Amino acid sequence: MIPPRRFTIHFVSDSKGTKARKMRYRDSGVDIDKANQATKFIKKAIGRTWGSEVLSDVGHFGGLFRMVDGYKEPVLVSSMDGVGTKLLVASMAGNYATVGQDLVNHCVDDILVQGALPLFFLDYVATGKIEPEMVASLVGGLAQACEENGCALIGGETAEMPGIYHGDDFDLAGSIVGVVDRENIIDGKSITPGDRIFALPSNGLHTNGYSLVRRVIFDKLGHDIATHVSEFGATVGDELLRVHRSYLHPVRELQKSVEIRGLAHITGGGILENLPRVLPAGCGAAIQRSVCPILPVFSFLQDAGDIDEVEMYRVFNMGMGMLIIVSKEDADRVPDKLVGLNVYEVGEIIPGDQAVELV
Amino acid sequence: MIPPRRFTIHFVSDSKGTKARKMRYRDSGVDIDKANQATKFIKKAIGRTWGSEVLSDVGHFGGLFRMVDGYKEPVLVSSMDGVGTKLLVASMAGNYATVGQDLVNHCVDDILVQGALPLFFLDYVATGKIEPEMVASLVGGLAQACEENGCALIGGETAEMPGIYHGDDFDLAGSIVGVVDRENIIDGKSITPGDRIFALPSNGLHTNGYSLVRRVIFDKLGHDIATHVSEFGATVGDELLRVHRSYLHPVRELQKSVEIRGLAHITGGGILENLPRVLPAGCGAAIQRSVCPILPVFSFLQDAGDIDEVEMYRVFNMGMGMLIIVSKEDADRVPDKLVGLNVYEVGEIIPGDQAVELV
Repeated sequence: MIPPRRFTIHFVSDSKGTKARKMRYRDSGVDIDKANQATKFIKKAIGRTWGSEVLSDVGHFGGLFRMVDGYKEPVLVSSMDGVGTKLLVASMAGNYATVGQDLVNHCVDDILVQGALPLFFLDYVATGKIEPEMVASLVGGLAQACEENGCALIGGETAEMPGIYHGDDFDLAGSIVGVVDRENIIDGKSITPGDRIFALPSNGLHTNGYSLVRRVIFDKLGHDIATHVSEFGATVGDELLRVHRSYLHPVRELQKSVEIRGLAHITGGGILENLPRVLPAGCGAAIQRSVCPILPVFSFLQDAGDIDEVEMYRVFNMGMGMLIIVSKEDADRVPDKLVGLNVYEVGEIIPGDQAVELV
Repeated sequence: MIPPRRFTIHFVSDSKGTKARKMRYRDSGVDIDKANQATKFIKKAIGRTWGSEVLSDVGHFGGLFRMVDGYKEPVLVSSMDGVGTKLLVASMAGNYATVGQDLVNHCVDDILVQGALPLFFLDYVATGKIEPEMVASLVGGLAQACEENGCALIGGETAEMPGIYHGDDFDLAGSIVGVVDRENIIDGKSITPGDRIFALPSNGLHTNGYSLVRRVIFDKLGHDIATHVSEFGATVGDELLRVHRSYLHPVRELQKSVEIRGLAHITGGGILENLPRVLPAGCGAAIQRSVCPILPVFSFLQDAGDIDEVEMYRVFNMGMGMLIIVSKEDADRVPDKLVGLNVYEVGEIIPGDQAVELV
């Protein structure tokens, strides 16, 4: 008998109707005690993300989510994303607790820019050999961020594929579904010259530019994950694994009293490529580089990698994680509404052809 | 300047509002003409899956899908899945056109068992080096199956991660979201002893058991992808890449006049593990092995791999891709409603403890 190598872990209710991520350990050499502990941990972590919309008593194959009420013309907003090569840093550090948070927060921010509130999330974990503790750590991070964002972790797949993933290699991706009323979709169409641009700061690299970062820090400088870098005030591992911020709560807070005309989540492509995606015809943007502090990690990388400044702004967020566009009239009220948060007025909308000028 | 290696392809509307999967080729050695051709092909293929629910004029970051009307209490049913090691067979054959269909059909079947109609799909493609023609082929397969299932291919991520994927290695996963009215959820609760079980046949391995299959066919027998196997009446590649069937259309047809009490999509774990997932307490199932033809590929694998019969039923679908449970009274009408399709009455519900007996 040759047993199959691939096994899957579904998020499903088990036959008793309790919340479970089903795990099967077969042909595995897995420590069953550790596996059971991990399963218990995962169950609990996922369970905390499930509100009354999750119909847990009938979810045997797929995840069931009762559509929320109170929308006139609900539009589902969805996005799929991966973590990218930040995963390699997590592997090097042996720290799998944060990349799940990165992924969820990234996805939350991606649909937030169109005005959507997250409803539920599904993940995909693929690896050469399933280590229950590692999966528990990954899923724990996903669940933590889902909980923080009021989002149900409703489904997932964990695939063991030794023919595709070798050694410590693994991948983590996920999809999010959110909702917005059609009339409240933020699409940038009302943006007009004179509007003001605010930045909510990032806390570091978030999830972009990691191939470049790894080349500079590991290949060029020869640092390893535990090297303490004085410019960071932290080890390489700690700096590079800072968790991608979710901007859900400050943006929702602001929306209560200010009309948000446009939002840009600054990811791969930086401000130069992400801000234009929300600018209507006839509008450009002027962004002041000196207002929102450029975090030390970016200055360090620019120097150490001898990277052109414009390229830096094309790869990294440079300290600005989310840009918010409001009318000139509303601008004064933004800092008042975001008391206790750093928020910077970094620029304005100018006549132009959907291009960004750094000034 | 060290440019980033990772680039992403988003499904988004471009600034002109046309449907696009954005591709950026940078630091790539990609043949730009071929890349442009691939992009054109992908745009067209995806566009064909978009109905009026897809708000293509505002989709800059996420995909926007207007919630469908006509449901009293809509429940969103979602699932995430990967293709598994069938991907390695696609790599060996250099044929990337069918695995996307496998993935979509698998996901459609997974939510169909709870009564859900597919709404939209998002994919994740990860590879060491993006080859536009390969991505076009993968996405073309996804789009074709989405179109066949009336499902919008609304989003996706293509990630290039040479540090994680080596050589021809790649991965393909995706998530589906569908909808069902709460009162129409199929949950198996009304199943009762005496009910009849029908099988809609599979056309081969579908997407399960590939690690075992590869060990038998390539490692043990030493066949290669082009070997013609007389038992298959086909080459290894053709047999192993047969497309996972979608059961959406026959099941919807049947539902018009017959109350379906339970559905089981026979995937990893076979009938022995999948059918119990829909059986209520007090019910078991007796399945006759001799009714629905066991496809030649299964007999061949059992012989060549010297695999125990029960293990075969635990790994493979053995010719039965979808099981349908109806009342004894409705049973006579099932074949009439599925004229032109092979459908087999393979067993019945018996008193028991959610176990399956093979008789």
